[in-house]
Amino acid sequence: MTQDLLTIAGKSFSSRLFLGSAGYPNQQVFLDSLAASGAEVLTVSVRRADLTGYGEGLLDLVAGKVWLLPNTAGCATVKDAVLTAQLAREAMGTDWVKLELIGDRETLYPDVEQLLKAADTLVRDGFTVLPYCTDDPVVCQRLADVGCAAVMPLGAPIGTGLGILNPYNIELICSRSPVPVVLDAGIGTASDAALAMELGCDAVLLNTAVSRSTDPVRMAAAMRTGVEGGRLARLAGRIPKRTRAEASSPELGLIGG
Amino acid sequence: MTQDLLTIAGKSFSSRLFLGSAGYPNQQVFLDSLAASGAEVLTVSVRRADLTGYGEGLLDLVAGKVWLLPNTAGCATVKDAVLTAQLAREAMGTDWVKLELIGDRETLYPDVEQLLKAADTLVRDGFTVLPYCTDDPVVCQRLADVGCAAVMPLGAPIGTGLGILNPYNIELICSRSPVPVVLDAGIGTASDAALAMELGCDAVLLNTAVSRSTDPVRMAAAMRTGVEGGRLARLAGRIPKRTRAEASSPELGLIGG
Amino acid sequence: MTQDLLTIAGKSFSSRLFLGSAGYPNQQVFLDSLAASGAEVLTVSVRRADLTGYGEGLLDLVAGKVWLLPNTAGCATVKDAVLTAQLAREAMGTDWVKLELIGDRETLYPDVEQLLKAADTLVRDGFTVLPYCTDDPVVCQRLADVGCAAVMPLGAPIGTGLGILNPYNIELICSRSPVPVVLDAGIGTASDAALAMELGCDAVLLNTAVSRSTDPVRMAAAMRTGVEGGRLARLAGRIPKRTRAEASSPELGLIGG
Amino acid sequence: MTQDLLTIAGKSFSSRLFLGSAGYPNQQVFLDSLAASGAEVLTVSVRRADLTGYGEGLLDLVAGKVWLLPNTAGCATVKDAVLTAQLAREAMGTDWVKLELIGDRETLYPDVEQLLKAADTLVRDGFTVLPYCTDDPVVCQRLADVGCAAVMPLGAPIGTGLGILNPYNIELICSRSPVPVVLDAGIGTASDAALAMELGCDAVLLNTAVSRSTDPVRMAAAMRTGVEGGRLARLAGRIPKRTRAEASSPELGLIGG
Repeated sequence: MTQDLLTIAGKSFSSRLFLGSAGYPNQQVFLDSLAASGAEVLTVSVRRADLTGYGEGLLDLVAGKVWLLPNTAGCATVKDAVLTAQLAREAMGTDWVKLELIGDRETLYPDVEQLLKAADTLVRDGFTVLPYCTDDPVVCQRLADVGCAAVMPLGAPIGTGLGILNPYNIELICSRSPVPVVLDAGIGTASDAALAMELGCDAVLLNTAVSRSTDPVRMAAAMRTGVEGGRLARLAGRIPKRTRAEASSPELGLIGG
Repeated sequence: MTQDLLTIAGKSFSSRLFLGSAGYPNQQVFLDSLAASGAEVLTVSVRRADLTGYGEGLLDLVAGKVWLLPNTAGCATVKDAVLTAQLAREAMGTDWVKLELIGDRETLYPDVEQLLKAADTLVRDGFTVLPYCTDDPVVCQRLADVGCAAVMPLGAPIGTGLGILNPYNIELICSRSPVPVVLDAGIGTASDAALAMELGCDAVLLNTAVSRSTDPVRMAAAMRTGVEGGRLARLAGRIPKRTRAEASSPELGLIGG
Repeated sequence: MTQDLLTIAGKSFSSRLFLGSAGYPNQQVFLDSLAASGAEVLTVSVRRADLTGYGEGLLDLVAGKVWLLPNTAGCATVKDAVLTAQLAREAMGTDWVKLELIGDRETLYPDVEQLLKAADTLVRDGFTVLPYCTDDPVVCQRLADVGCAAVMPLGAPIGTGLGILNPYNIELICSRSPVPVVLDAGIGTASDAALAMELGCDAVLLNTAVSRSTDPVRMAAAMRTGVEGGRLARLAGRIPKRTRAEASSPELGLIGG
Repeated sequence: MTQDLLTIAGKSFSSRLFLGSAGYPNQQVFLDSLAASGAEVLTVSVRRADLTGYGEGLLDLVAGKVWLLPNTAGCATVKDAVLTAQLAREAMGTDWVKLELIGDRETLYPDVEQLLKAADTLVRDGFTVLPYCTDDPVVCQRLADVGCAAVMPLGAPIGTGLGILNPYNIELICSRSPVPVVLDAGIGTASDAALAMELGCDAVLLNTAVSRSTDPVRMAAAMRTGVEGGRLARLAGRIPKRTRAEASSPELGLIGG
């Protein structure tokens, strides 16, 4: 079997699980979880990176081990998001950015109108932009049109663990997207991650589902496995759903039949 | 991490995926799928075992590699099921039996009333009985009461690939069962298998979802991975589902905030 | 439009909503809810009927207004259920009985093995038997085979309000049943009742969803309306589900197009 | 019970079902369906109104009986949508408009970025704007912010009959919207319409589910009833969903117990 790589903006990864760095009980659990997840992409909020999360320099600890993806978490205006991305580029030496532009403090839902403007601005400024967006196929298309390197539709609101609320839309987006689709937000457990891959997603980003689980290191392994299983199932070509039963064992010539 | 073994009737397995042996394109694909699945338990219909499936002796090929679990597929009466189990014991040298007693040729749904009688008879005759049953918590309890070594509730009708139609009942059964619960029938893809484990099942049995997929060997690997991911997630303790968003990244002190 | 009657055991009803009589805040709310529901069949537990529920003779109050359907709620053995049915027949002058035979005090799930025996006994004793059963198509068939006048599969456990946990099975049962199918238990709101009818049920029985709602009289009206809407939709023949959008308004020749 | 009116932009309606006028087998079926639906709001595409649909003047036939809501179906740019609305205002004498601005010809999904611009323009031009939009709570809030009189989130793509793909988002939108929420698109049957109302929608707009059903007149009655049942259930306050069974009939002191 040839290697099944994920390629975004010319950079290839063998893992299809992206991990967030927030909310772990302590630094060691985070590092062990990261290792168990097999993730090669790590999202960090610019503020945490500045403040050297977990009492030490998070960035130093993971340097060279993972691809850092700074995010603009908490930004609510185009100006803030663009400025945050620019500071991240300077501080962290990467032009990749996970663009978050929140439209509502309570639901943390993206503001897609502002998101499109910020994405356009950042792409023109040379960034590799991965926007966190709604599960709206037209918004995803527009984000690709302005030059985003991937789209990151949500499965459910951040931190809820509700899974994929609208699998129809996620599958629709995947079937049409000219750029990789990374499911972001809402994942609660391994079967959610597997389902995302089966619907056609190219990768899954999650954070809370690992960091706030009872045993983050084991859940990180679970998510790694779920993503791999879902990806394999997608490639293997599942049986169609039938509404009628079909015997797997032959029914003719049964003993005593 | 200590090894996470499944124990049924005193016999331990490190794999929690049981595989069926029917419907593969050819013998080599079957053997490769079996290897890729990591399954240690293989179900075979007595008729196929007799007829040396795939043109050669299936039993010889897998002898010593897997634990054989003969099934009574297609039996529709207590008498036929008991007779079939007895023939299997004689021919295959095992007192384990997957007891199938079909109540309806079209849906292949179990007849739980007859199933209870056949299970009772076979247990008294010294068999280790694993009955294929409905997702009815009282039936599962009664089957355990008569001495079955495990219960095997269906997720959906055989061969449909519809997944787990009633997760509530499966979770209820798992939370109360005094014997291992093996989800049997209905699985279509890796996320279904993962979900079964997350609901508390001890193992998953499947056949069609692998044998009739486009690439059975790869799907066997997908199912192995899905089962492992679901089991890990179960053990890791998932986050609760919330109806409100919760930020994973800190929101205070944002740049420009 | 000719009248759309429900006929069970030769008796016809114009309402397809059956109501339970337990758990109302007081007698007046119960009577008003009954009127608002339009129900023509009222289930009563034999014990309540004996004890003249709500401080007065419930049976006197509704005499002649509704068809009484005594139930054997709480019975856990064939003997108890049969005895209870016989007492009801003597006390209430009806040979109709809603047969409940509980297999588990916690989930109130039916014990289908005992249920089949009790149903058979009561049918032979001249009763018109409507058994509360699981959503198992084979059990429903067996109950019809022994002469039950209708089958009453559950949507979800009693009192949970979870709706119809397994619509696939309910639809399957309805498509094959030789006797009327009355969905019993689990209904939480009007759309659940409508869905039951759309799946092919002939009627819906509910109690808690009305009696424990904030405004039982209004909820009784809601359930009446939901059942009627679902029945009309079933008869009208819904559009098939499509996976692709289809314009309702014409798209050619648009202004400015 | 005081009358439960729906008020949009100062105009009150006693029906909460809006009907579309496209795709009926013939004019008489349309008129009979309209009557059976009880709808007081009728959407018409401007093009059809011009061309006097169904061989005669549709507008003349329904004049004075219903409130006409011209739509901009098929428009794909702000300019087209605004022009179409203006032509409708002139031709039909109403400043109400159902604003449709399609972002994709295949899925007929709205383009929310352009929709917000068109809505803003039309509100400033004195229109009463009811925009067809995604189930995005931030977009709905922004549409209300620019002065729309209601929001019309989709349940599923137009004409699919898939029902409400994301009930979570619809409920979220309803719980926060400062203007009435009219569910638009995706409804397939009466239980879907009831569910929309139970989630908190103020009204439901549908077309294909009636016009393309086997018996449109009866389905129109079904939808009317479904909407009424769902509204009543919402007002009545449903029981909470429980994960454990709760007896409706008393269990103590049973006969033979």
